[in-house]
Amino acid sequence: MTDQMHHVTLASRPDGAPSLDDFSYQPAPIPTPGEGEVLVRVHYMSLDPYMRGRMDDAKSYAAPVPIGGTMEAGAVGEVIASQSPHFKPGDFAFGMFGWATHGCLPANQLRKLDPKQGPITAALGVLGMPGFTGWHGLTEYGKPKAGETLVVAAATGPVGSMVGQVARLAGLRTVGVAGGAEKCKLATEKFGFDACLDHRAYDNARDLRAALKQECPDGIDIYFENVGGKVLEAVLPLMNPFGRIPICGMIAWYNAGGLGAGAKDQGLTGPGLWRNILVKFLSVNGFIISNHFDRFPQFLKEIGPKVASGEIAYLEDIAEGLENAPATFIAMLGGGNMGKQIVKLI
Amino acid sequence: MTDQMHHVTLASRPDGAPSLDDFSYQPAPIPTPGEGEVLVRVHYMSLDPYMRGRMDDAKSYAAPVPIGGTMEAGAVGEVIASQSPHFKPGDFAFGMFGWATHGCLPANQLRKLDPKQGPITAALGVLGMPGFTGWHGLTEYGKPKAGETLVVAAATGPVGSMVGQVARLAGLRTVGVAGGAEKCKLATEKFGFDACLDHRAYDNARDLRAALKQECPDGIDIYFENVGGKVLEAVLPLMNPFGRIPICGMIAWYNAGGLGAGAKDQGLTGPGLWRNILVKFLSVNGFIISNHFDRFPQFLKEIGPKVASGEIAYLEDIAEGLENAPATFIAMLGGGNMGKQIVKLI
Repeated sequence: MTDQMHHVTLASRPDGAPSLDDFSYQPAPIPTPGEGEVLVRVHYMSLDPYMRGRMDDAKSYAAPVPIGGTMEAGAVGEVIASQSPHFKPGDFAFGMFGWATHGCLPANQLRKLDPKQGPITAALGVLGMPGFTGWHGLTEYGKPKAGETLVVAAATGPVGSMVGQVARLAGLRTVGVAGGAEKCKLATEKFGFDACLDHRAYDNARDLRAALKQECPDGIDIYFENVGGKVLEAVLPLMNPFGRIPICGMIAWYNAGGLGAGAKDQGLTGPGLWRNILVKFLSVNGFIISNHFDRFPQFLKEIGPKVASGEIAYLEDIAEGLENAPATFIAMLGGGNMGKQIVKLI
Repeated sequence: MTDQMHHVTLASRPDGAPSLDDFSYQPAPIPTPGEGEVLVRVHYMSLDPYMRGRMDDAKSYAAPVPIGGTMEAGAVGEVIASQSPHFKPGDFAFGMFGWATHGCLPANQLRKLDPKQGPITAALGVLGMPGFTGWHGLTEYGKPKAGETLVVAAATGPVGSMVGQVARLAGLRTVGVAGGAEKCKLATEKFGFDACLDHRAYDNARDLRAALKQECPDGIDIYFENVGGKVLEAVLPLMNPFGRIPICGMIAWYNAGGLGAGAKDQGLTGPGLWRNILVKFLSVNGFIISNHFDRFPQFLKEIGPKVASGEIAYLEDIAEGLENAPATFIAMLGGGNMGKQIVKLI
């Protein structure tokens, strides 16, 4: 036991794809919990695409991580000291502890976990923010109806795999897009997609569109947008009238910088995008899951039992060691992970 | 009385802005109504921006007008012969008679008008498709709430003026955009907008945005999209979180051609547009009013009395003579009209 912890800070703002130099692995003193606070030893932390956005100082829905600040992350771990009546040492909890071996937060910012109900890592993926994001976006904005066709990219990721499975259980035809033959196999075999296309096998949006058209003979009713870029370009002309597009992310564009006026155009111009929304009577809704925590209990109630029974499958990709988090994160942005990316710290 | 009528046909598909050569004013025999049909002598016909879209052969929600075919239009007139028990000579009716002095349609495609309840021209504007478009888009997708701020362009047009007035009556701050000082004066004095900006006074979207920011100190909650182009670019960065954008048209881009992959980018790229939807949790809905005729009775019930009482104002710009319809239409696309553009035929 030592009095030191470690954390990973933002050393510099990346220009395009982040590099290892943009992160710094640092020692720090372990904080002492104040009144109402709880100190947690982190066992597993989550790596998610949204963290790339926090590295830019572009205006967004969340403040950027300051230079020298700890990178943000949700994590799960064991309580080792508590100044709150709601937690005692040995309890397990989820909280936004950041890229760090230890975290100290007010008790009301923690969610207690019961390790007897299943692996605590589920709180980072299938029963955490990513799974909740997929379920909420699909049910609230996607409005799935039996017999319709849904397309989602990053189909083996924790958002895409939830979207695909909830849609399939609702009676939709589900077509995934993923990077590489191995992921496509996983999408159909483990997550039950009716088909999955390897976007790397297509040079451009037009070729990907032709392949999607084959797999979506009745057009596309819901495109759950979590990647942007080539997939959006391929999908948009195939959308059916009255289609729905929930938008929770656009990882393909995250490394393009602030994505404002200076962002690179990927070929789908503003007028083209806008015209498709108009002439197909589309409903397009952007959202961030943190505005919708009121639905979290309903999500757990509906999806928790389906995860426990195996009706909804999930997959975790667990790297080891906080010091490896930057390299793991960079690889994940390039699609190097298989399933929900987690880092094991202890 | 003669057995001849006249109509205006599409002579060629315009490349960019239409010219007079794209239209042909032609004689034709007056049709004889068949079983269930009604022959109408048109008194007034409507000119609307959507007709520009029908001149292209780009895929859209409606079939293009074929070369040599009669230009489409809604119109009102007097029944002069009827093979239907529902109409008799002397009745007035609205129907899609096209750019023509006479029209013959099945009775079930006509709507009977009562000239005692007000000018029959109202069925082309304030109480017709344009007014209905504004009311439906605002109430269904705009979801106005007292205290919010709304922006609409073409503020003195039949759609924009309905949107602004319904929003004002709902307690919103309403800011219009229009072309020229005279229209801006009309917007505030006749239609009650809190402010109106002359887009011609601003060289680019950035300058227009700075002026809009002054007039919308609390940001923009609803942007009713009926023009596209510079106004969209100016507005988008000012949208508040959870903002709503109903899209019923994009006249600024109509002359840009098919607006598909080959459309000119107006500076607001696909990623930029998409990012704004995501990071501000916007709800963007495209619609065409013909899919929503089920709400027309409710519209007439709510808005009809307000028009009769003068609580909702309207303005008509009436040109004379079918042979002048092409020039009037071309001028209207350039913003040359003041209020709902109508052509008087008789």
